[in-house]
Amino acid sequence: MSHNTIGHLFRVTTWGESHGPAIGCVVDGVPPRLALTEADIQPFLDRRRPGQSKFVTQRQEADQVRILSGVFDGLTTGTPIALHIENTDQRSKDYSEIAERYRPGHADITYDLKYGIRDYRGGGRSSARETAMRVAAGAVARRVLGPDVRIRAALVQVGEDQVDRAAWDWSAVDENAFFCPDRAAAARWEQRLLELRKSGNSVGAVIEVVAEGLPPGLGAPIYGKLDAEIAAALMSINAVKGVEIGDGFAAAALTGEGNADEMRMNPDGTVAFQSNHAGGILGGISTGQPVVARFAVKPTSSILTPRASVDRQGREVEVQTKGRHDPCVGIRAVPVGEAMLAIVLADQLLRHRAQNPDAPSVARLPRN
Amino acid sequence: MSHNTIGHLFRVTTWGESHGPAIGCVVDGVPPRLALTEADIQPFLDRRRPGQSKFVTQRQEADQVRILSGVFDGLTTGTPIALHIENTDQRSKDYSEIAERYRPGHADITYDLKYGIRDYRGGGRSSARETAMRVAAGAVARRVLGPDVRIRAALVQVGEDQVDRAAWDWSAVDENAFFCPDRAAAARWEQRLLELRKSGNSVGAVIEVVAEGLPPGLGAPIYGKLDAEIAAALMSINAVKGVEIGDGFAAAALTGEGNADEMRMNPDGTVAFQSNHAGGILGGISTGQPVVARFAVKPTSSILTPRASVDRQGREVEVQTKGRHDPCVGIRAVPVGEAMLAIVLADQLLRHRAQNPDAPSVARLPRN
Amino acid sequence: MSHNTIGHLFRVTTWGESHGPAIGCVVDGVPPRLALTEADIQPFLDRRRPGQSKFVTQRQEADQVRILSGVFDGLTTGTPIALHIENTDQRSKDYSEIAERYRPGHADITYDLKYGIRDYRGGGRSSARETAMRVAAGAVARRVLGPDVRIRAALVQVGEDQVDRAAWDWSAVDENAFFCPDRAAAARWEQRLLELRKSGNSVGAVIEVVAEGLPPGLGAPIYGKLDAEIAAALMSINAVKGVEIGDGFAAAALTGEGNADEMRMNPDGTVAFQSNHAGGILGGISTGQPVVARFAVKPTSSILTPRASVDRQGREVEVQTKGRHDPCVGIRAVPVGEAMLAIVLADQLLRHRAQNPDAPSVARLPRN
Amino acid sequence: MSHNTIGHLFRVTTWGESHGPAIGCVVDGVPPRLALTEADIQPFLDRRRPGQSKFVTQRQEADQVRILSGVFDGLTTGTPIALHIENTDQRSKDYSEIAERYRPGHADITYDLKYGIRDYRGGGRSSARETAMRVAAGAVARRVLGPDVRIRAALVQVGEDQVDRAAWDWSAVDENAFFCPDRAAAARWEQRLLELRKSGNSVGAVIEVVAEGLPPGLGAPIYGKLDAEIAAALMSINAVKGVEIGDGFAAAALTGEGNADEMRMNPDGTVAFQSNHAGGILGGISTGQPVVARFAVKPTSSILTPRASVDRQGREVEVQTKGRHDPCVGIRAVPVGEAMLAIVLADQLLRHRAQNPDAPSVARLPRN
Repeated sequence: MSHNTIGHLFRVTTWGESHGPAIGCVVDGVPPRLALTEADIQPFLDRRRPGQSKFVTQRQEADQVRILSGVFDGLTTGTPIALHIENTDQRSKDYSEIAERYRPGHADITYDLKYGIRDYRGGGRSSARETAMRVAAGAVARRVLGPDVRIRAALVQVGEDQVDRAAWDWSAVDENAFFCPDRAAAARWEQRLLELRKSGNSVGAVIEVVAEGLPPGLGAPIYGKLDAEIAAALMSINAVKGVEIGDGFAAAALTGEGNADEMRMNPDGTVAFQSNHAGGILGGISTGQPVVARFAVKPTSSILTPRASVDRQGREVEVQTKGRHDPCVGIRAVPVGEAMLAIVLADQLLRHRAQNPDAPSVARLPRN
Repeated sequence: MSHNTIGHLFRVTTWGESHGPAIGCVVDGVPPRLALTEADIQPFLDRRRPGQSKFVTQRQEADQVRILSGVFDGLTTGTPIALHIENTDQRSKDYSEIAERYRPGHADITYDLKYGIRDYRGGGRSSARETAMRVAAGAVARRVLGPDVRIRAALVQVGEDQVDRAAWDWSAVDENAFFCPDRAAAARWEQRLLELRKSGNSVGAVIEVVAEGLPPGLGAPIYGKLDAEIAAALMSINAVKGVEIGDGFAAAALTGEGNADEMRMNPDGTVAFQSNHAGGILGGISTGQPVVARFAVKPTSSILTPRASVDRQGREVEVQTKGRHDPCVGIRAVPVGEAMLAIVLADQLLRHRAQNPDAPSVARLPRN
Repeated sequence: MSHNTIGHLFRVTTWGESHGPAIGCVVDGVPPRLALTEADIQPFLDRRRPGQSKFVTQRQEADQVRILSGVFDGLTTGTPIALHIENTDQRSKDYSEIAERYRPGHADITYDLKYGIRDYRGGGRSSARETAMRVAAGAVARRVLGPDVRIRAALVQVGEDQVDRAAWDWSAVDENAFFCPDRAAAARWEQRLLELRKSGNSVGAVIEVVAEGLPPGLGAPIYGKLDAEIAAALMSINAVKGVEIGDGFAAAALTGEGNADEMRMNPDGTVAFQSNHAGGILGGISTGQPVVARFAVKPTSSILTPRASVDRQGREVEVQTKGRHDPCVGIRAVPVGEAMLAIVLADQLLRHRAQNPDAPSVARLPRN
Repeated sequence: MSHNTIGHLFRVTTWGESHGPAIGCVVDGVPPRLALTEADIQPFLDRRRPGQSKFVTQRQEADQVRILSGVFDGLTTGTPIALHIENTDQRSKDYSEIAERYRPGHADITYDLKYGIRDYRGGGRSSARETAMRVAAGAVARRVLGPDVRIRAALVQVGEDQVDRAAWDWSAVDENAFFCPDRAAAARWEQRLLELRKSGNSVGAVIEVVAEGLPPGLGAPIYGKLDAEIAAALMSINAVKGVEIGDGFAAAALTGEGNADEMRMNPDGTVAFQSNHAGGILGGISTGQPVVARFAVKPTSSILTPRASVDRQGREVEVQTKGRHDPCVGIRAVPVGEAMLAIVLADQLLRHRAQNPDAPSVARLPRN
C-alpha cells in the first residue's frame, strides 16, 4: 500500500473528492477472460449506498458505476479497468464555517498541517465517499477469487451491545438496516440509534468479516503476511481504530492449551482443524480454514453537541456539525470491510500463484 | 510491505533462518551523514536477547551485530547498510520428530502447504529469531527519526491481568523481567509465569508502544495511512493477533461526545489537544500528539501438554514440545514492537518530507 | 514501473483503449499548493494531437483534458489528480479483418498469446493513443520540477538523414511539422515523407530530449539510477527500439582520453564541466549539467504493402493495412519523449529530496 | 527498480562497497524446491572474476560465494536467499589523493554532491565490484527460468572494431579473453588492447546478450514492458551509455517494409517468424523468438593521462589514475549483462504466471 494505491499484483488506485465532479478507480493486474459487467459491480455499491435508511447519511447518490476500460465484449482483457461514478448530490451549501474550522475527530486539521491546503467541501478526499470505489474494486476482486470463495461481513457490536453468537444467522444480515446477523440485537440497535439520532450523538461499532473457501498458502512472509495486509487494509477504512484476527485481543487472555487449534485428518486426506482460534492464518499464511477478522469503528465525529476547537487562524472556536451524517458510520463500513478483504485476498492469490504454481488448492496431505 | 521487505523509502529486507549460519538485514534509503556504529544498535539487541531471565527462551545467543556496509568513518553514506548476526547456539539435536509433525499453532503446516518444503530446525524462517533483525533495523530507524522522537513500549497485560494505569512509571519498565510499567503488576506476573512455566503452559499478552515528539503530517492517505502501516507492521510480528490505535476497540463502545479530542491553543501558537482518544492519528495522518498503539500476542504455541496433530504423511499424531521456549512470547515482543513502530515512522517521515518539504515540524497555526 | 504505473513517489497510472469511451490517468504524489489548471496541460496535448499535418495520423481528436480531482481553487491539494479525455473519433468501421489477423510488427499477436483476448479496435490498449495521457501527466511533472527546469525535444534523424548539429536552432522546432531543429533537414524530410506516404511505406526516426536546469544529485543507485529509469521510460514508448544517454553508442568507439569530461571551477564556486560526453549523469546520478538522451523509433508497422502473416486460427494470410496511419510515428513521439523525461525527473526529484533534504541545488563546492 | 533493489516478484537487493569487509545480496521471491548450491553460482562468478587476463583489472579476489539462507538440503525453500562474498584483496594503500579529488568520468563527484559523503576507497559503492552480486543473483535467476531458457552474451565491438557476424561462433566465446564470438576479431582486439594498456588509455565496447527458449507473453504493458525493464537493467550496469533491442538504432534507418517480421506457420501449429528485427519483443511482450539486446560501455574512465579536475575544496587539480584498472571494462560486463537479462526475465516470468496461469509456453495457435 502506498499513496492512493493498494496491492502489488492486483492493484487498486482510487481518486476523487466528496464534492468533485466524480470519483473513480483503476483496477490493474486483473487476469484476462473473466466475465465482468457493470451489473456485477452495482449490487455491491447498492448495499453501501447512502440514503437507504434513517440510520445512515441522507446524502442521495445513485452511485451508478461505469466501466471505462479493460473489458471487451463482457470479458476482462488483462489491461487496467477504470471504474467511474459521477457525484450527483453535490448540494450547494455554505462551507465557510467548515472551511476555516477544524472538526474534532476529523482529518480536517491533519490534512491542513500536512498539505497546507484541503478541499473542505464535505471532507474532500478524507470523506467516506472514497469507500464507494473500494466496494467497486472489491467486486472485481471477487471475480478474481472465483465462485468458490465467499466473503461476508456483519455488524457484531454497536456501542457496548454485542450480538449473541448462538443466534447468528447469515440470512438475517440483509434483512435489517444494520447488517446484523442476530435479529434480537438488530431490534435493540434500532432503538438505540433512533435515540442517538434524535440527540445528535453517535456511537461506535465492530464489524466481523469472514472469507470461506480459500486455498491454503495465501500470504507472503515475513512482511507480506496475510494477516498484516488484512490489518492494513481494514485499518485504512475511515474511522477504524482496531483490527483483530481470529481470537484477536481475547487471545492475550488465553493459555497455550486453550489457544491450540488441534488437527485431525478428514477421510479425503485433507487436514481437519478442530477449532479456529487462529482465524485461518498461521505464520502469516492461510490454513484453508475460514479467514476471520474484526475491526472497530469509532463513533461518527460529526455530532450536534458543540465541541471546543480551533480555526485556521489559530482562534479558539466551538464546532457543531449540522447536516446529513451517520449516527453510526460502522453500518456502512460492513460492505467496505468485505471489499477490502476481497482486495487483499485477490492480490495475495496472484502473488501466491506466481511463486507456487503447483501448490494445492486445499489442505491436502501428504504434500509430496 | 512485500515478501521480506518493509518500507518504501526507508526499506528493510531481512533474511535468515533460526538455525542457519547467520541472520541479517539490509537497511536501504538511510539518509547520509548520520552517526552510526555497532554500539548504537547493540543495546537494543541486548534488550531483546534470549536467555536473560527464566521467563524467556533459554537459547544462548550473543547476538553481536556487525555493520558490513553503508557506514564510513562512523557516518552513514546513503548506501545500503548490511547488518549481520552469527547464529552461535545451533544446538545439534534430533529434529526428526518436528520435521515430520506439525506443531499446532505454528507455521509448520502453512509453510509446508505453501512451499512443499521447510527448514524445520527451530522453526526455520518462521522463528521469532528473525525479529532480532527488526530490532537492529529499528535502531537505525531511530537515527533517522532523530533525537527528538522517543519511542518506548511496555507490557500492559499478561493473560487477563492488566497494569494499573494510575501506577504507570516508565522507569519501572527496565527494572523487571517483563518490561512492565507497574511494579505491583510485575510482581503478580512473576508468580503467574513461574506457575505456567512449571506446568509447561503459556499465556498471551498485550504490549503498548508510544512515540512522542513526532511532527504532524506523517501518513499518506488513502492506502499509506500511518495507522494502516503501523497495523501491518505490528501484525507482522510473530504471534500477534490484534492491533489497535488510541482507544482502539474501546472506541466502539464510546459515543461521539465521549470520543472527541477537543482542541485549544497553546500560547506558542501550536494546537493543544485536550485528549488523545485518536492515538495521535486523524485521517491516517499524525496530529503531532503521541502516537499510541497496542498489540495482542497469543500464548506461546509450544507447550508441554500433548496436542492432537497430523504429520506430513497424513497420520494423526500427538505433539508435545520439549525444550527451551518462552512461557510468554509477549515479553520479548516489547522491543520488537518499538522497532516496528520506529521503522514505519522513519519511512513515513521520508515520504512526508519528499512531498511536503515545507510542512511544519509542530502543529503550529496559522498554517499559512 | 509496474503494470500500468510509472514512478515511486510521483506515480502515474494510465488506463484506456484506443476505441473505448475515454482514456485517463491518475497522477499521485504531487506536492500540494502548485498552481494547476487544464490550461497548463492542454498546450502539451495540442502539440501531440493527431491530425495536425499530413505526416501524422488523420484521426481527429480534440483531446480536451479534464481535471476530475486533486485540484482545488486552482491549486493542487496533494491528493491524486485524475485526468480524463473523451475518445470522440471512434469511427465505426469493420474490424473483422484485423480482429482475426495479426499485423506484423504490432502487438496484436503478443497480446493474444499473453492474454488470450484483446480489444482489437485500433490497437486497443497497445495503441499510441495511450501516450496522450503520458503527455498530460508530463505537464503535471513539469509543475513539480518548477520553472527552472526546461525540458525540450527534437527529431534529429529520419531514416538515415540526420540533422546538422551546427545548424541546430531550438526556435525552429515548433516551426515545422517534424519538431526538427535544422530547417534544411526539415525541408529534406518533407520531401522524403511525402514520397513514403504516397507509396504507403514508412520510416524510422531518432529523437533527442534534453533537460536543463536540473539540480545535481538526482538518481538513486544502484537500481534506481537516473539513466536506467530514463532508459526504461523512453523504451516504454510505442515503437522505441533503442535508448542512449550522452554519447551513447558512440562512446563505445571512444578512448578514455576522448571520453573524459574534464572539470574546472566557475567563479561562483560551482563546477564547470568542460564537456558533456556523459549526458549529465555519472554513476546514475545527475551532475547538474543538461541531461541528454536519444531514442530510436522503428518505422510504422502499418503499411500498404501486403505482408505475410497468420490469423487466430493458425491460417497463413496476407495483411495490408489501410486507413489513417503515420508515415513516421517518430514525429509524434517527440512530445511524448519530453513527457517521459519530465515524469522520471519529477519522481527522482521527490526521492532525492526525501533522503537528502539539505543537498545543494547546484554543483557547488566545497560541499561541506 | 528502486534504491538497491531490482525486481517485483523475483527481487534482488545488493549491498557492499569495494573495500568493505564483504559484499552480498538478498534474492527474494525464489520459488521453492529448486535445486541450488554454491556450485551452481560459482562458475558464473569465476567468469567475471578479476585478474584472469592482462586485459582486466589485476585485483585478486577469490570471489567465493556462500549461501547463508533460503536453501535447505540443497533445495530452495521459498524464503530469501542471502549470498555473501568476502572482500579479500583490500590492499592497504594511500587514498588521500582520491579522497579529495574527483576522477573525471567517475561517480566521485555525483555521490559527493548527492550525499555529502562517500566511501572513496576503490570507488566505494559505485565500484564495479557490486556487479559480482548481480552475477551471483543471475545464477539464481537461471534456476527460476529453468533449463529450457538459455542466456548467452558476447563482446561484439571494441572501439570501432566490430565482429564479423558471418564468423559468429558461440563456442569461441569462452576460448578468448574477450568473450568474442569471432576468432579473427579476438586476435585484432588483443593487439589493440595491449597497446592501450601500455599507453594507459582505454576503449569502449558493445555487448550483445541473447535469451533463447523463452515462452511468449513475458512483459507487462504499459510500464512494465519487457524491453523497458531490460533497458533499465542493462543501463544500470556501470559505464553503460546505450541499450538497444533487436535492430535498435538501426531500425530508425529502415522502412516499414524492411522492418516487418513476417509470419508463417510451423507444422506443429506454432508461429514461424521469418525474421527478428524486433528482437523477440512486440508491444513490450515476448514473442517466443530469441530476445536480443545490445548495450554500449564507455571506455574506462581511470586512465594514466592526467585530466583536469577539481577537489572537494573547490580547487582546480590534475587527476591521473594509477593502479590496477581495466583497459576495457566492457569485457567484464559480458557476464554481468547475461545476469541482468536473467534477472529481468525471471521476474517477468513470475509476474506473467501470476496473471496468466494458463498462457501457452510456446507461440501456438489457435489460441483458444
